[in-house]
Amino acid sequence: MINKEKSYQYELEFTVRDYECDLQGIVNNSVYLNYLEHTRHQYLLSKKIDFAKLHMKGIDLVVSRIEIDYKSPLSSDDKFVVKLTTRKDGHVRLVFEQDIFTLPENKLAVHAVVIGVGLNKGRLMKVEEIPGFDELQ
Amino acid sequence: MINKEKSYQYELEFTVRDYECDLQGIVNNSVYLNYLEHTRHQYLLSKKIDFAKLHMKGIDLVVSRIEIDYKSPLSSDDKFVVKLTTRKDGHVRLVFEQDIFTLPENKLAVHAVVIGVGLNKGRLMKVEEIPGFDELQ
Amino acid sequence: MINKEKSYQYELEFTVRDYECDLQGIVNNSVYLNYLEHTRHQYLLSKKIDFAKLHMKGIDLVVSRIEIDYKSPLSSDDKFVVKLTTRKDGHVRLVFEQDIFTLPENKLAVHAVVIGVGLNKGRLMKVEEIPGFDELQ
Amino acid sequence: MINKEKSYQYELEFTVRDYECDLQGIVNNSVYLNYLEHTRHQYLLSKKIDFAKLHMKGIDLVVSRIEIDYKSPLSSDDKFVVKLTTRKDGHVRLVFEQDIFTLPENKLAVHAVVIGVGLNKGRLMKVEEIPGFDELQ
Repeated sequence: MINKEKSYQYELEFTVRDYECDLQGIVNNSVYLNYLEHTRHQYLLSKKIDFAKLHMKGIDLVVSRIEIDYKSPLSSDDKFVVKLTTRKDGHVRLVFEQDIFTLPENKLAVHAVVIGVGLNKGRLMKVEEIPGFDELQ
Repeated sequence: MINKEKSYQYELEFTVRDYECDLQGIVNNSVYLNYLEHTRHQYLLSKKIDFAKLHMKGIDLVVSRIEIDYKSPLSSDDKFVVKLTTRKDGHVRLVFEQDIFTLPENKLAVHAVVIGVGLNKGRLMKVEEIPGFDELQ
Repeated sequence: MINKEKSYQYELEFTVRDYECDLQGIVNNSVYLNYLEHTRHQYLLSKKIDFAKLHMKGIDLVVSRIEIDYKSPLSSDDKFVVKLTTRKDGHVRLVFEQDIFTLPENKLAVHAVVIGVGLNKGRLMKVEEIPGFDELQ
Repeated sequence: MINKEKSYQYELEFTVRDYECDLQGIVNNSVYLNYLEHTRHQYLLSKKIDFAKLHMKGIDLVVSRIEIDYKSPLSSDDKFVVKLTTRKDGHVRLVFEQDIFTLPENKLAVHAVVIGVGLNKGRLMKVEEIPGFDELQ
């Protein structure tokens, strides 16, 4: 499933912060969703798509589904990289595949599939109608 | 998929706290994992299984996979209930099905399947070997 | 400093959730600010002042200063109560004194003084000008 | 109080992540404590003092008091730097002065004083007795 040759469209490096670890001494399972979200938003910013500004215009990018496999836990001060690819699925869904690898070992820590949609004042939008998304390949 | 007649083994009520909402004014997608975890841990406590004390004995209950569908967003001061059922899957996996419903409307907000395993100093345990789990039906 | 006879205007009970504890096995110092904020917002709601709705009208209640003394740590599954009193300080500042006590022991866990102000599109407001605050005490 | 000539012992740069903002669209007041803590822990690591490893040896560095002034809010994608100086206060207290400045403007966002102590299995330690702290000037 994880192909070492796989090519990604974007990647962002992080360091685990101690407050992100829970009483087991490892990063809490919810915090990985923070890492994944921040990487998606920085990717979108790199494409001139600003999650916060879109919200102020009444357009919300929201997550409709996440599948996440926890392969190997991260802990205090670990370095890691979050990588992603995106593709459209039908007219309204944008699929992000995201993998987290430890650095420098490149060991898979998390594999996730995140499905997002755009809402214009609560109404589902076609992906191409979301400002900036027509240019996402 | 969600059967109104479905019976659950445990449920816990919450109120959305404002700090759990993000700049879109709705609960951030990662925060639902906090609600789901707290409900699982309170359920386990009700069965005399203490996540924190197990950790101190070298036994860690960890999440290996989550599938979560976001159906309808929660926002400031919303009341809701998290319900769960559990079942064993094979020798080592415990499956929690968890649904979040708004109160008092009983509208489905989130549906999730969470798979957990027990580790004894890092080694996979059979579910029955985890102290207290032999009694979980 | 903490007077046992002290009378409070509002109180709210909580249970520590495991994800709020950090790798030391105790509630992380930042999380107490979440408890304090949620209690203030619920207090304001009890007075018909809605933090989220005010924001939508362009009025933001923001914290300008916090002094917090950590007296005794909370940990997994601890029950506790957050109590508060409020008073005006000058024309623009609202002062919340907030204490956290363990339950059922009533041991002081945290003592905090939180100073808030109201902003109307970024401009400081007199406390009485904030909708609903004229009726506070 | 903030002297532009002030010299700091350590500094660390950050970018605001969208999930750190609350429904007001600005970084939630509790999140600044996360920024401050992460900077202290990275500073200590730079001095070969490892918060997580000390915990495993029964020594806990805990915060006993924080005073924090919120001067100017941070919001989505803002860049900023957290700077710190440390000094001993008496035999058992370590005082961190921490300032957060926006980048590239160098506008003061937060000023904080954080007081920490060391505990050996719950007993207060002299600062010099904490492994590694004898070398902190």
